[in-house]
Amino acid sequence: MRTDASEADLTRVLEVIESQGFEPHVSRGVERTVVGVKGARERLNPDTYSGLRGVMQVVRVTAPHKLASREWKPQDSCIPVRDVQIGRGSLTFMAGPCAVEEREQLLEAARGVKAGGGQMLRGGAFKPRTSPYDFQGLGEEALKMLAEARDETGLPIVTEARSQAHVEVIERYADMIQIGARNMQNYDLLKEVGGCKTPVLLKRGISATIAELLMSAEYVLSSGNDNVVLCERGIRTFENATRFTLDVSAIPVLKEQTHLPVIIDPSHPAGRASYVPALARAGIAAGADGIIVEVHPDPSKAMCDAAQALSMETFAALVSQLKEIGAVLAKTETT
Amino acid sequence: MRTDASEADLTRVLEVIESQGFEPHVSRGVERTVVGVKGARERLNPDTYSGLRGVMQVVRVTAPHKLASREWKPQDSCIPVRDVQIGRGSLTFMAGPCAVEEREQLLEAARGVKAGGGQMLRGGAFKPRTSPYDFQGLGEEALKMLAEARDETGLPIVTEARSQAHVEVIERYADMIQIGARNMQNYDLLKEVGGCKTPVLLKRGISATIAELLMSAEYVLSSGNDNVVLCERGIRTFENATRFTLDVSAIPVLKEQTHLPVIIDPSHPAGRASYVPALARAGIAAGADGIIVEVHPDPSKAMCDAAQALSMETFAALVSQLKEIGAVLAKTETT
Amino acid sequence: MRTDASEADLTRVLEVIESQGFEPHVSRGVERTVVGVKGARERLNPDTYSGLRGVMQVVRVTAPHKLASREWKPQDSCIPVRDVQIGRGSLTFMAGPCAVEEREQLLEAARGVKAGGGQMLRGGAFKPRTSPYDFQGLGEEALKMLAEARDETGLPIVTEARSQAHVEVIERYADMIQIGARNMQNYDLLKEVGGCKTPVLLKRGISATIAELLMSAEYVLSSGNDNVVLCERGIRTFENATRFTLDVSAIPVLKEQTHLPVIIDPSHPAGRASYVPALARAGIAAGADGIIVEVHPDPSKAMCDAAQALSMETFAALVSQLKEIGAVLAKTETT
Amino acid sequence: MRTDASEADLTRVLEVIESQGFEPHVSRGVERTVVGVKGARERLNPDTYSGLRGVMQVVRVTAPHKLASREWKPQDSCIPVRDVQIGRGSLTFMAGPCAVEEREQLLEAARGVKAGGGQMLRGGAFKPRTSPYDFQGLGEEALKMLAEARDETGLPIVTEARSQAHVEVIERYADMIQIGARNMQNYDLLKEVGGCKTPVLLKRGISATIAELLMSAEYVLSSGNDNVVLCERGIRTFENATRFTLDVSAIPVLKEQTHLPVIIDPSHPAGRASYVPALARAGIAAGADGIIVEVHPDPSKAMCDAAQALSMETFAALVSQLKEIGAVLAKTETT
Repeated sequence: MRTDASEADLTRVLEVIESQGFEPHVSRGVERTVVGVKGARERLNPDTYSGLRGVMQVVRVTAPHKLASREWKPQDSCIPVRDVQIGRGSLTFMAGPCAVEEREQLLEAARGVKAGGGQMLRGGAFKPRTSPYDFQGLGEEALKMLAEARDETGLPIVTEARSQAHVEVIERYADMIQIGARNMQNYDLLKEVGGCKTPVLLKRGISATIAELLMSAEYVLSSGNDNVVLCERGIRTFENATRFTLDVSAIPVLKEQTHLPVIIDPSHPAGRASYVPALARAGIAAGADGIIVEVHPDPSKAMCDAAQALSMETFAALVSQLKEIGAVLAKTETT
Repeated sequence: MRTDASEADLTRVLEVIESQGFEPHVSRGVERTVVGVKGARERLNPDTYSGLRGVMQVVRVTAPHKLASREWKPQDSCIPVRDVQIGRGSLTFMAGPCAVEEREQLLEAARGVKAGGGQMLRGGAFKPRTSPYDFQGLGEEALKMLAEARDETGLPIVTEARSQAHVEVIERYADMIQIGARNMQNYDLLKEVGGCKTPVLLKRGISATIAELLMSAEYVLSSGNDNVVLCERGIRTFENATRFTLDVSAIPVLKEQTHLPVIIDPSHPAGRASYVPALARAGIAAGADGIIVEVHPDPSKAMCDAAQALSMETFAALVSQLKEIGAVLAKTETT
Repeated sequence: MRTDASEADLTRVLEVIESQGFEPHVSRGVERTVVGVKGARERLNPDTYSGLRGVMQVVRVTAPHKLASREWKPQDSCIPVRDVQIGRGSLTFMAGPCAVEEREQLLEAARGVKAGGGQMLRGGAFKPRTSPYDFQGLGEEALKMLAEARDETGLPIVTEARSQAHVEVIERYADMIQIGARNMQNYDLLKEVGGCKTPVLLKRGISATIAELLMSAEYVLSSGNDNVVLCERGIRTFENATRFTLDVSAIPVLKEQTHLPVIIDPSHPAGRASYVPALARAGIAAGADGIIVEVHPDPSKAMCDAAQALSMETFAALVSQLKEIGAVLAKTETT
Repeated sequence: MRTDASEADLTRVLEVIESQGFEPHVSRGVERTVVGVKGARERLNPDTYSGLRGVMQVVRVTAPHKLASREWKPQDSCIPVRDVQIGRGSLTFMAGPCAVEEREQLLEAARGVKAGGGQMLRGGAFKPRTSPYDFQGLGEEALKMLAEARDETGLPIVTEARSQAHVEVIERYADMIQIGARNMQNYDLLKEVGGCKTPVLLKRGISATIAELLMSAEYVLSSGNDNVVLCERGIRTFENATRFTLDVSAIPVLKEQTHLPVIIDPSHPAGRASYVPALARAGIAAGADGIIVEVHPDPSKAMCDAAQALSMETFAALVSQLKEIGAVLAKTETT
């Protein structure tokens, strides 16, 4: 309460709390009176109280997400995608071109991913593009090529659903559905994939807080789909030497707050290939469960995000480095 | 080009430019060689070049949006919504509750908006909420109430489409479709409303640059809908004394770069009602074409965003102040 | 406390609170235990508690600044600079060149400021520059020119102290000492000017929160100098269409939290002259007590920040507009 | 140039360029005319041109820092601090308490740092604190304790100069002078330490771009002190789950642009000890040359930043992990 709040203001606040079925608790300090609200946290809405006369500040002391929380499920979750297990101690490397462009090229990329130590293949069929004049992806045709690449290499495939309308067709072909950063708060899309059985890769929005990422995961979990993997892919800050700022701190924070696996995408924040290995190593060293990275058999010919795709050789060398870093972490945790 | 780029690197860059049908132009400085690319700007993709060996930096010197640009259409656009004209010198005041909750309350709000000098009624039927456990709106039932309020007061109505699936039903009832901040880069939704005849109110995403806002407007315009009004509603920054930071500078920047009208939403960045009038006045003084603001007959009872809703009395006083500020600006521009 | 905190953890927290002379207060909820700490707020340090086992979050409910707070002094302060009164209902217009460069030019600028309705003259003698190779100001020579300009026009002068070493010489010539954005947390400099009798113009750092700005004002006030004017001059965000983002919301927030006057600098956030009038109007409309703006008799010849200086004609027209906007606000507040 | 720029506008721009002794170069495209400026980059000031009529945008194609640039000195620099060599392939671990508080405690910490594998001792004698009511450090008394700890353990010491006035006394006792984040743009302080022989640890400001950090290093280098080590310590963003956002991408960017060593401070961005090891590992994995970390013999008793100090046991385990990660990187670089 504000220092200038009257007893009448306080009484009104207590009435509102009780009218919503919660129990108020008053604590008077030297300069402030603090009112606690006890009750089921999912139903509590701070906005209800912050508008009342005399209220200075409303502070939440319980996390508003429940199913995603570490308190709800203390042990790490492990998300199965075909025979790949994401999380709980294993490292998963997903790689592929930004967009699926051409059949032969995709197959070549898939073989390179497999040979380089990757366990999953990524590739965009429906691309979200800032400009309406940019290449928007090949749609179902791309999905067919991805499925063919999986059949040949055995790598499960992950691809992005840009809209609810894409979910059905993607489920038919893909093994994991990606929700892109721009759609992290597209709640109808989240509920749609929450109704699927296919695992979901949920990317953090470029200006979403970690708390909001967990609330978006909660949309999927509370709609019935337990298989969610989170992905940190860079946030927007004032620094523009890189395209986005990889928030590597998000990894230990998420590991503390949620049981869901966390991977990183080093390609989009880097914006150029030469920074990608450093960011990938940083992510794994910080405790991430894997990476999703853009590779291309001939990076200079890629139709989108050419600057940030790794060559197949660099990818293979990177995977080997990441495994060694993972081994350093694993060793210390067990002793 | 980098200073360590070889002649072979340069030759390769020139080849790629020519292979895409553009004309390269080489300029050698004391320390740098700069290569210009001439051609139709919509097709130019900086990523194509930034990945090439020896390239240091790719800089765009033409804006990538075309239909939204001031260069394309030098005169201010005026967007008609029923008999309200938005832009080109007039001020438009849109107001209403955050969410439509109850028929009698909405009608009361609509009468208050009308009486207070408002020209349009806003109200949420489909609410995007961070938490899946929060109230998500009454859907079509709310649209019917809004239509009834319009029929009684004559105020055209604007309401948000959270998903492509909502567009058809909203078109049936509403006079203007709002695209919310979280959906500014939901490109399928933008194309969907681009195919409508109903005018569009496009809100800036909380981490979208002004350039990206214009690219999103370009999605709507290039899909065939010319009637787009832009809305600045606060961006996410490190400052948390307010919910978002109203980027008032966006108004003169947009006025310079686009012919589309620009309004501001002072309610969401403020986060509390006591800051709303100051932000509304700032927006109009900076040259905005109007505001969209949350009001409520009894703010403390609102189910969402209670803290930021203005009472009907404050709204009426604010409208009167804004008109006077508008008159100050108009006087100077004509003399 | 965390949900997994033990009774022993709680006991230890209570002991630490008591050992520092404060009184603990325990409140047990359904899911959380909350511990309140009562005592003199200036001595409370959240860090002391956040490191203890079992502690989840430490929240301050009293503002850590005292002398600057509205609770300490409910009425608006009025800061006298010679015969100019800043704050408490009056509008103050400070203007002048970014840097003092040449005697004749400065006198010409000062006459223009006076003629255009300005009440104070600004001009840099010691310039903070990002690059060591840029022009750093003329030092004492510039101060002498400023004093001459004041003697001729009667305009009190304000100029920046970049370092403690400058304070003494600036006090000899100037009427108000400016602390620039880069030095807002140069605490030794703050204490130095806190020991002066000359009023202080304290600019907000580009990444300082409003709370930190008030803490920096507290350094000056608690060192004995009561005459502090705050200045919002733009914060650093992801948006780069303007040089900085003018945080216009800071004005109503500061007006609520402090009794000190608040002015805005529209020149530095704008980065170009064509945006300056819109930002200046926004600031006054939001409730600012004045502006400090860069002007130049011939903007294209200025040695620093040329792009953002207003011509004398534009300045005069702007002052006239700002007075009218101020009149609109004053009228409503009295009725 | 803008598309609406006249030939007269262009002529004026060319005149200004020539009047400053540079050579203009005109290139006419389909929609734009681009004017190049050739000449010594240190003297070029974009502001000179952006204010001219008809100019749309001014873009720098050469970096404004020179002595710090990789182009100036392609090989990694190695900075000697007594017998410790920072950079060029070796990892340096600096550790110690946030503030020096008590002699016995400091000696205990120094022994712990030595035993745990640290090579340098840190400790604050002059603390910059947001609040004037917080503990500000013991000053010269603390420096004497630090020197005693060095004499006993052999660890060179690094401590912060908060003001020019501190530099002389710090030089008498310490082996490396730290410039804190708040002072990164305190140019007089930078020039002061630029005149010293003692090596400088320059921390990045919380809202400084990488380019600005390099310009601040340029102040020190161009004043005559070649021994500068850069430190990434977190930037301010919208995310507040951690105190600051460690910009791990800054490491590969700096490694590309400068020859100076780069270390990271994982303690300040983390804000709590449990996140520190993850951030430290991320920094080393991204290619940093070392870390500077806060440790305390009894973290819960520290007077400042208690929440983020590591215990001596955690520090020792961390150093061992970091060495192993360093070995993974070294192996790949040599093969």
